[in-house]
Amino acid sequence: MFSGVLARGGVAEQVSGRAWLQALLDFEAALARAQARAGELTHEQADAIVALCDADRYDVAEIGAGAAEIGNPAGAVVKALKAATDAPVHKDATSQDAVDTAAMLVTKRALVPLLVDLRAAANVAARLAATHRDTPIIGRTLLQQANPTTFGLKAAGWALGLDDAADTLHSARLAYQLGGPVGTLDPPYRLDLGLDVPVIPWHTQRNRIGELAGALGVAAGALGKTALDVILLSQSEVAEVRESGGGGSTSMPHKHNPVAAISALGCAKQAPALVATLLAAMVQEHERGAGSWHAEWRPLAQLLTTTGSAASWTRTSLETLEVDAGQMRSRVTGDTGAAARLVEKALDHR
Amino acid sequence: MFSGVLARGGVAEQVSGRAWLQALLDFEAALARAQARAGELTHEQADAIVALCDADRYDVAEIGAGAAEIGNPAGAVVKALKAATDAPVHKDATSQDAVDTAAMLVTKRALVPLLVDLRAAANVAARLAATHRDTPIIGRTLLQQANPTTFGLKAAGWALGLDDAADTLHSARLAYQLGGPVGTLDPPYRLDLGLDVPVIPWHTQRNRIGELAGALGVAAGALGKTALDVILLSQSEVAEVRESGGGGSTSMPHKHNPVAAISALGCAKQAPALVATLLAAMVQEHERGAGSWHAEWRPLAQLLTTTGSAASWTRTSLETLEVDAGQMRSRVTGDTGAAARLVEKALDHR
Amino acid sequence: MFSGVLARGGVAEQVSGRAWLQALLDFEAALARAQARAGELTHEQADAIVALCDADRYDVAEIGAGAAEIGNPAGAVVKALKAATDAPVHKDATSQDAVDTAAMLVTKRALVPLLVDLRAAANVAARLAATHRDTPIIGRTLLQQANPTTFGLKAAGWALGLDDAADTLHSARLAYQLGGPVGTLDPPYRLDLGLDVPVIPWHTQRNRIGELAGALGVAAGALGKTALDVILLSQSEVAEVRESGGGGSTSMPHKHNPVAAISALGCAKQAPALVATLLAAMVQEHERGAGSWHAEWRPLAQLLTTTGSAASWTRTSLETLEVDAGQMRSRVTGDTGAAARLVEKALDHR
Amino acid sequence: MFSGVLARGGVAEQVSGRAWLQALLDFEAALARAQARAGELTHEQADAIVALCDADRYDVAEIGAGAAEIGNPAGAVVKALKAATDAPVHKDATSQDAVDTAAMLVTKRALVPLLVDLRAAANVAARLAATHRDTPIIGRTLLQQANPTTFGLKAAGWALGLDDAADTLHSARLAYQLGGPVGTLDPPYRLDLGLDVPVIPWHTQRNRIGELAGALGVAAGALGKTALDVILLSQSEVAEVRESGGGGSTSMPHKHNPVAAISALGCAKQAPALVATLLAAMVQEHERGAGSWHAEWRPLAQLLTTTGSAASWTRTSLETLEVDAGQMRSRVTGDTGAAARLVEKALDHR
Repeated sequence: MFSGVLARGGVAEQVSGRAWLQALLDFEAALARAQARAGELTHEQADAIVALCDADRYDVAEIGAGAAEIGNPAGAVVKALKAATDAPVHKDATSQDAVDTAAMLVTKRALVPLLVDLRAAANVAARLAATHRDTPIIGRTLLQQANPTTFGLKAAGWALGLDDAADTLHSARLAYQLGGPVGTLDPPYRLDLGLDVPVIPWHTQRNRIGELAGALGVAAGALGKTALDVILLSQSEVAEVRESGGGGSTSMPHKHNPVAAISALGCAKQAPALVATLLAAMVQEHERGAGSWHAEWRPLAQLLTTTGSAASWTRTSLETLEVDAGQMRSRVTGDTGAAARLVEKALDHR
Repeated sequence: MFSGVLARGGVAEQVSGRAWLQALLDFEAALARAQARAGELTHEQADAIVALCDADRYDVAEIGAGAAEIGNPAGAVVKALKAATDAPVHKDATSQDAVDTAAMLVTKRALVPLLVDLRAAANVAARLAATHRDTPIIGRTLLQQANPTTFGLKAAGWALGLDDAADTLHSARLAYQLGGPVGTLDPPYRLDLGLDVPVIPWHTQRNRIGELAGALGVAAGALGKTALDVILLSQSEVAEVRESGGGGSTSMPHKHNPVAAISALGCAKQAPALVATLLAAMVQEHERGAGSWHAEWRPLAQLLTTTGSAASWTRTSLETLEVDAGQMRSRVTGDTGAAARLVEKALDHR
Repeated sequence: MFSGVLARGGVAEQVSGRAWLQALLDFEAALARAQARAGELTHEQADAIVALCDADRYDVAEIGAGAAEIGNPAGAVVKALKAATDAPVHKDATSQDAVDTAAMLVTKRALVPLLVDLRAAANVAARLAATHRDTPIIGRTLLQQANPTTFGLKAAGWALGLDDAADTLHSARLAYQLGGPVGTLDPPYRLDLGLDVPVIPWHTQRNRIGELAGALGVAAGALGKTALDVILLSQSEVAEVRESGGGGSTSMPHKHNPVAAISALGCAKQAPALVATLLAAMVQEHERGAGSWHAEWRPLAQLLTTTGSAASWTRTSLETLEVDAGQMRSRVTGDTGAAARLVEKALDHR
Repeated sequence: MFSGVLARGGVAEQVSGRAWLQALLDFEAALARAQARAGELTHEQADAIVALCDADRYDVAEIGAGAAEIGNPAGAVVKALKAATDAPVHKDATSQDAVDTAAMLVTKRALVPLLVDLRAAANVAARLAATHRDTPIIGRTLLQQANPTTFGLKAAGWALGLDDAADTLHSARLAYQLGGPVGTLDPPYRLDLGLDVPVIPWHTQRNRIGELAGALGVAAGALGKTALDVILLSQSEVAEVRESGGGGSTSMPHKHNPVAAISALGCAKQAPALVATLLAAMVQEHERGAGSWHAEWRPLAQLLTTTGSAASWTRTSLETLEVDAGQMRSRVTGDTGAAARLVEKALDHR
């Protein structure tokens, strides 16, 4: 009911049930292919398995419901595959190998649209910074008018924050998982999934998840800061920017609300606590977490979704931003210090 | 893909897109009926509106996508109704009136299955307490064997925690919202929705949401505690209880994992951070939150879902629990103090 | 270094090291007295113990450092007492009995100044509501000017939120703990500490802690909402209120920042995550938590401190608030609906 | 009262009131020195200022209380300096320049002991991995006995997690702040404080704080995982390791609790929510946060303290760990797969 607001941009599709299912199947297909290359099963067997690894062949809801049986969906996926072929599906692997690898694939795929939107938002901010390098605006500290700065420097700050967050996310370390039942597997083959090869299995060493979570949280923070500034500058009494596509309301159609920035902020605010859940879930038991692992799946998907939505909305907000330089200027007396030079430094740094 | 684990029991259906849509429509229907009773519109008009307020008439995904327009779904709902009738839909109300009331209706309906499962879990715990009032078990402090207690007292503790959480949730104060654009409405009629009548509109006074969140968080905590004890008692080396329906694994079918308790704990661990998001969202701007309000919807639905799932799983875990009193007894020498008397006190207190 | 901002009002003193030490000693004294009444030790023995239970006799830092030995401070306290008397100190009790009871005593004592400030803030808000029942102000939704309301209704909303939070905190259920090593104690005497008698020991049933945390989080939310409104109304471009004691800055002494409201909001923002830590810590192992219990102490003290500071600052902010009714009125055309009547309803409800 | 448990190791001293005060003074001294080098003030003036920048000259509590005046302690520090010299103290700077730089200095200094303990813990884990490369232990998944692995591989996992967290923390980007009242300063000199030079002022672009928080949260997670494994292996029924220095209890002196691991876990559990607070605080207003900035100080200090304490305790736990290889072996039949080879891979990777 809230998808238009809370699941905007391309991320939601990448973390859907169907996307998870395809990622689980991609793991099984990659495993079969790699094992065939290593001579552990025949190419015919691998082909048979690979041919089955298409999410369209299965009922997502049914597989999802089947997750109840062993407490995760890998069992239901393997069962469905085994019902269709005698080839040795899921050989040597454990359910966490499939689910963890799927989580990393889902993340990798979700980061694509997320980063497109995040970079696009940064680019618009940088353009605003260049255009308004010298446009004076009153600096506001503690929400009180203080000394002059330029709107370009404000936008340059947005750009650097968004850029920086994108760089960190871009370099997120996403590895596959293949450790077998208790993580003692050291297979002579590699999975060809575009994911890093881990040094050793990481079933219960979740630094990767924690770092990823932190990076998404930082991105949400940088997006939220940008959105909040737009909202504050859009206030009726300030009126220094406005979203050209601003929305009305059911009771006051004349209103011109900065819907994109507001939605961005609404999405960004949901991120920090999801990060906390994922960090808390790092404390996993022995060779497979008993509840801690299970506590990762939904928060990870939600964190990707809410950060991606914030990125999409922030991009829209900035892309549709109308800047009232005259209004800004009207509040300023005095010079803007080194603001313009700092804008150039910031833009050079990109 | 994880619905079998993370969306168990009846709550998920009550917080679905369709359920939200029906709740939004229920608000519009109740408003029309009340206004007709007050003479603010004709009974024919009200009937026309009410007849349209059935979620089956609409495309949930389309309405959800339409939420992007004004930043919440009420606009899309009202638009759909207005397309079908000339009667004065949504008269005097603002979008937050509809969305907040829907949130409370959704909560009220989701609490029904949640409380059924929570009470059932408490009842099983109480039965275990009565049955094992005198069954000696070694008490464990800091996960070290300490002095004897009884399994009944352990179960009595679970029962009291679950009961207490259910009592608090049962008395959650759920009120409708009807304040109009800026909360200055004081209508001469009441909405007939089974919700409390608020003293004044509460568009940005969110104590109710915060309290509800806290109560759900406490319930999740009490469920998580129970589940953790079952998991710890089920350890191979302890083996004092086992879930009769325990699950295997994709690689080790012989295993007997306490899947229900593990899933319960996995769900319970997701609650605290969602509570934090809802508490942080209480800090709302002026007469309608700009992002803070929007940050409530998904966390509220998720908190209901994850707590409800934890309740359903805990109930299953306890209902299928096999207690090995011999194994318990084998570790105990010495008497169990006042444990049996405390069990009776606890059961009398229910 | 931040005590002036982050530890304002009377709460910090009530959660200090010395305050905890006194509370631990109060437990031992109350235990000795009760046991003497029950004939379990002589009155001379009890008197000897009670005479030693004064925090001024001990080095707080030394006892605090001694907490490392068994992982909590009760051992160091008992050791210090036993070094000074042969009377049976801490008889039948376990360290968690002392620490949990002390936590509840500390809470009870910290809630006194906290509630004084919270009620005082609510009272000022109510006075503002009465005074400005009819003072028109433009209502702002999503930070855009919308329709008129009255400043009194805004203040009435603050008052109800603060009142309600205070009522909930006032009825917090604070019980002592006395369960002995594994919670099987059912003593024939009661501790006379002004705390509730628990039905059974609650060493690892932490609903009380979770509920208390939730109530504090709700209070922080209601305080943060009030403070945010003051900050927003104080913006240079809005200028409808100002704190008479507003602060300057090191670089711009002419500024007039709403320091009290800003500090209140800064404190309130720290609460939600502390609530989450306490809720997560409810999941405790068997008869004594192994790390989960230990994770409660600092967050509880910090949550009391930050909520108490927010209350103190909000009170100051409201008590020093200068309302510019002319400025408010200048933005309003049109009538204020039922705002004035709603103010009366709200004030009648108090 | 809990310092022995919750403020262990060297971090607490580095985040004390005195440490913050010294860091604030270090900023003022570095500023004066740099300005003297740039000819903006005389060397005599700089010397006069520098001579005053010793925390021992001031009353920490008094300065801390003075933070109430403008809402942060920089004002009180500058006032104290100005009372003692006519030289131009704090020239061009704003209070946030001093406080942000101090926060980074405090962090840099706190990370020294934190990283010493974290690296030491990783080193002991690596030694355990080497020593027990081939020591068979039953792998446990979902807290059920599964297939064999080696204790060395378990310890190698700990080592990699701790190493990795230390590497990330070691490369934390800590920059000073010097932007003047609204961030438009671009001084021709640099502060000599061992901190990075920022591209542009970052008063309200808090990616650095968010990243640092995430890295600390990941470290706490890796520490918590290690501690939890020790606690679980120490259970009476498992008894495969024990801390040689394990603690007793006030009521059961014969007990041998893994106090170090329990305390480590208790500290680690407090980190995730503090990370969330810092991430949420990234959403700052315009050129200086109104409450969001103020919400950083205590959580940052607490996050450093609790993570540092967890590191110190984990180090102690591992350094005093007695491994019962016989007990481990007694539960294992079957081979340990590639566990030994994976240990070597892990150790080679360090």
